[in-house]
Amino acid sequence: MTRSQTSPPTIRDVAARAGVSPGTVSKALNGNGQLRDSTRSRVTAAAEELGFRPNHLAKSLLEGRTYTVGILTSDSFGRFTTPVMVGIEDTLGAGRMSTLLCDGRGDPLRERHYVQELLNRRVDGLVVTGRRPDPRPSLGRLPIPVVYVLVRSDDPEDLSITYDDVQGAELGVNHLVANGRKRFAYVSGPARHWSTPRRRDGVQRGLTGAGLTLDPNLVLLGEWSEAWGRTAAGQLLRQDPGLDAVVCGSDQIARGLVDGFREAGVGVPADVAVVGFDNWDVMVEASRPPLTTVDPNLKTLGRLAATRLMDAIDGHDLPRGVRHEPCDLVLRQSSG
Amino acid sequence: MTRSQTSPPTIRDVAARAGVSPGTVSKALNGNGQLRDSTRSRVTAAAEELGFRPNHLAKSLLEGRTYTVGILTSDSFGRFTTPVMVGIEDTLGAGRMSTLLCDGRGDPLRERHYVQELLNRRVDGLVVTGRRPDPRPSLGRLPIPVVYVLVRSDDPEDLSITYDDVQGAELGVNHLVANGRKRFAYVSGPARHWSTPRRRDGVQRGLTGAGLTLDPNLVLLGEWSEAWGRTAAGQLLRQDPGLDAVVCGSDQIARGLVDGFREAGVGVPADVAVVGFDNWDVMVEASRPPLTTVDPNLKTLGRLAATRLMDAIDGHDLPRGVRHEPCDLVLRQSSG
Repeated sequence: MTRSQTSPPTIRDVAARAGVSPGTVSKALNGNGQLRDSTRSRVTAAAEELGFRPNHLAKSLLEGRTYTVGILTSDSFGRFTTPVMVGIEDTLGAGRMSTLLCDGRGDPLRERHYVQELLNRRVDGLVVTGRRPDPRPSLGRLPIPVVYVLVRSDDPEDLSITYDDVQGAELGVNHLVANGRKRFAYVSGPARHWSTPRRRDGVQRGLTGAGLTLDPNLVLLGEWSEAWGRTAAGQLLRQDPGLDAVVCGSDQIARGLVDGFREAGVGVPADVAVVGFDNWDVMVEASRPPLTTVDPNLKTLGRLAATRLMDAIDGHDLPRGVRHEPCDLVLRQSSG
Repeated sequence: MTRSQTSPPTIRDVAARAGVSPGTVSKALNGNGQLRDSTRSRVTAAAEELGFRPNHLAKSLLEGRTYTVGILTSDSFGRFTTPVMVGIEDTLGAGRMSTLLCDGRGDPLRERHYVQELLNRRVDGLVVTGRRPDPRPSLGRLPIPVVYVLVRSDDPEDLSITYDDVQGAELGVNHLVANGRKRFAYVSGPARHWSTPRRRDGVQRGLTGAGLTLDPNLVLLGEWSEAWGRTAAGQLLRQDPGLDAVVCGSDQIARGLVDGFREAGVGVPADVAVVGFDNWDVMVEASRPPLTTVDPNLKTLGRLAATRLMDAIDGHDLPRGVRHEPCDLVLRQSSG
């Protein structure tokens, strides 16, 4: 295939075929101007026969907008950003916006290059996302609106839309308390990650509300892995065989914990009820028993971010600061 | 933020600030024309101070290309297409191309809408991808080059780049045979999926090469899930306690199988060696023991597709037909 064979038909080709001027083609296809019906249908037919499409670029130049939004991710389109992006697409797709995707891979130089490239391409706005809700450096002031989603910007002037770790963990505790559980453990990932202490705060808040306490000896922090969940199961059983509920910082940890308990002869949920975090289908469904878990509603976050961005592109002010959207609890067998 | 405040500086703003004509700005920034060094540096400084960026849209109109490639996926950026897209991005990013991402979600109407939208946006080329290597309807003749990757087009005139199911499964068998295994089972997903019978062919070919046979009673087809792997483990042990090797159609199946064997007191790899397919990190690493598996090298497929597409955009002919790229075997503990 050579370029000459594939070059798309122009408005002049349509004009020649329909036997009219290019100006008449423009009027006919845009539905404005006074034209005879027969002329209009002759032009439409010619455009269709040639496969002519009005030039989006020329339209963009004229209107000063490209109907394109940049998405900058640091996560290589991973497990957490994927639902966010589906949510963004849901919202933008309906409004005929397209998304230009850039993967900064957490490298500031690569990110700067991409932001520059997106500005050169005159995107109408930018969504920044990444793997975790931890604060990240702001991109600073750009000539286009920017919304951070899932990740939060470290600049309070920016708008960040993320989920509520505290409320999510509290949901799990409230459910377990309502089912009569009293002696709680919290097993989670590294203390340095944003979510780890905040989900602990949520557990604490739920227990305090029920007149219960969280024994600091039953707070075990490690890695975001199944292996750590299995190890933690053993530690918990040695430390306090009387515990009857565990809130986990992730579904992977919860799945490992459930495996560890089962292999030690401890019944889930009969002896210990377990709640995960993430609602990651692969983990929660393969777990034996399937996991009750906190759903951070990542797709909803993506939809909200896209809606805010569209409003800003249409000239409305962007709100500032961090918006924490509520999590939901999804009930399965592990919590009784 | 209102639009008027954010409208980007134009070439006229730069000219006014530098005290020259717009034509001089153009010459200075494009590095052509005869200009005094002092004029050139005055223009460059003015452009920098104003944050001026040459208009990518105008450039695109002029050159007849947008330096943009569309990616049409049917997989909502899922587990299989993600590495493919990272590979595409690796290759295009280096060449300053951007990617417009569309998720057709397997819906022909949605796909047609997106293809139209991408053509309206004058993308220079299109990559089509999806969850599985099964044949999919061709998009037909488009005015731009199209490459199918991971998925295969049902039109032999199209170029499809995918992996070699047969060779991949055969790799697994050869490795197990070299380790002295003799009595094989094949546990896989639904028979209607492209890969299921082809990976079976690969197992067969490897065994025939070693003078061994595949007992049809030890071919168990079910679902792509851990639960099916666990069920299959029980069936295999009832049917043939003497088997010493299993090739699985996916890592999820292999992980379930390994769990089932362990819980039945069968040692992996001591009694039975197991090989998976996919090299999906979450599965192969959490498995006890970690899984030896076939890696379909999806990132490489993405790189190859992008390279072919770039060549075609530059005017070279696209090859036709299906290219099967080789898989690799990744060794871990489950195979001994």
